[in-house]
Amino acid sequence: MGSGEIPFPSLASLTGREGGADLAAPPGESPVVVLVRPQMAENIGAAARAMANGGLFHLRLVAPRDGWPQAVAWRMASGADRILDAAEVFPDIPSAVADCHRVMGTCPRPRHVIIETLTARAAAGDLRAINAEGQRAAILFGPERAGLTADDLACCDTLIRYPLNPAHMSLNLAQAVMILAYEWWTAEEPTPARVFVTNETHVATKGSLEAFLDRLVSELDACGFLETAHKRPLMVRNLRHWFLRGQVTEQELRTLHGVVTELARGRMVRGRKPDPTPPWADE
Amino acid sequence: MGSGEIPFPSLASLTGREGGADLAAPPGESPVVVLVRPQMAENIGAAARAMANGGLFHLRLVAPRDGWPQAVAWRMASGADRILDAAEVFPDIPSAVADCHRVMGTCPRPRHVIIETLTARAAAGDLRAINAEGQRAAILFGPERAGLTADDLACCDTLIRYPLNPAHMSLNLAQAVMILAYEWWTAEEPTPARVFVTNETHVATKGSLEAFLDRLVSELDACGFLETAHKRPLMVRNLRHWFLRGQVTEQELRTLHGVVTELARGRMVRGRKPDPTPPWADE
Repeated sequence: MGSGEIPFPSLASLTGREGGADLAAPPGESPVVVLVRPQMAENIGAAARAMANGGLFHLRLVAPRDGWPQAVAWRMASGADRILDAAEVFPDIPSAVADCHRVMGTCPRPRHVIIETLTARAAAGDLRAINAEGQRAAILFGPERAGLTADDLACCDTLIRYPLNPAHMSLNLAQAVMILAYEWWTAEEPTPARVFVTNETHVATKGSLEAFLDRLVSELDACGFLETAHKRPLMVRNLRHWFLRGQVTEQELRTLHGVVTELARGRMVRGRKPDPTPPWADE
Repeated sequence: MGSGEIPFPSLASLTGREGGADLAAPPGESPVVVLVRPQMAENIGAAARAMANGGLFHLRLVAPRDGWPQAVAWRMASGADRILDAAEVFPDIPSAVADCHRVMGTCPRPRHVIIETLTARAAAGDLRAINAEGQRAAILFGPERAGLTADDLACCDTLIRYPLNPAHMSLNLAQAVMILAYEWWTAEEPTPARVFVTNETHVATKGSLEAFLDRLVSELDACGFLETAHKRPLMVRNLRHWFLRGQVTEQELRTLHGVVTELARGRMVRGRKPDPTPPWADE
């Protein structure tokens, strides 16, 4: 072995089972999800659905309890049929991961062994790097109730532990797959953390907003709302704070101008005294 | 209103429905999850279960299709019964969020309005800050197929959009709740991204490892494995690289010493020639 090669010899060469996995997609595309001894076919379908949401496509099943295929899985898959169609079945973990360079196992509790344990988020980062380097990774998920055994985990070079509420950890299989798929996807998702959506909308300029505020204050003066002289600066400032804090579209601003116009017109038409000072003006 | 107050007036004061929400827990503890027109009671139960995993406890239902309570929800809740027991029902969104200071709505697609849109991760960060400030936040999830309507979203001051695979977005209600609960939890989870678990295990020192390697190389020399003089330095270096890259416990090291001893003894007892050079020594 040359220096720099991965130290674990190919498991296929150890077991004599070369060529165990006939991949439908080239290596390095995305990690392989391996369900170890899954109990219920509905959960396999739900797991496939979770995978699709996060951009994971390769599914392998190790000794599924009820055999494979199981029609009920497709009913739960909600469009992730292709993943189920391509799913491969193996009798044990070594044969399922024979062509993989890295094997990570999910487990809820720390193990009494020396092995690197990552959060799901850190694992996703590593998986992206592994993928980019052209290496193939597998992620093992254990059976619904028991999880992976110590022997199962001995097939792994890394563990993944989801940090979640220790007072109530009841992640089901599909949810566990969902979280990892979500972290895998978001590890390279370019959506900015926060945006203002301005498709097809024109934001009014601050100049237009100031013009509106000037008009509003004039009308309020005219109807006596801002009569209490010593409070006027505070009330005007409050209105400005509130109004200028957000963004207003040009269309919305036209609407607001219309509101002011109509209220003012209504007052003049009715010829009545201004309404009593509203409660919120009383500071 | 004093400067710095949240600009949206209490919806309760607008609708005249004060005191709509009688909270079981003090404000600021954790955000309220609001399921708007949920269709299937199983999904309500599954959502409660997802909430519990991520440390969210307050559930409100707006106009559940089949009414409330529904026994099947408890069957899906897997120990999150308390959340369902305390769930409150409202006829519409304004009454459900009357006591909240912030309302965030989940939606899969960008909307043609000006409103801050956050990823789930950014939303979780904001929710933690909002919580720490003693403000109450609600997160709205829409009905299973249709999602929140434009009118529903008009009750929100912020939108949440999960970045996921646009070619296959089929997040079900419980999964959507799960992701947010997971982000909420991990936003303040102290688990380090990566650890080596060393409970009750003693890692061998480099000195012990060197001593073992020296012994191994001596035995290999004695049996002629490293005979090819010009290759010896490379092979020894490969062995050192591989062996020293990981960590070994003291117990494991004792085992390895035993392996070397037994192999050496077996060779001497059998008095046979050394085995032919194995394939991996051929570089």
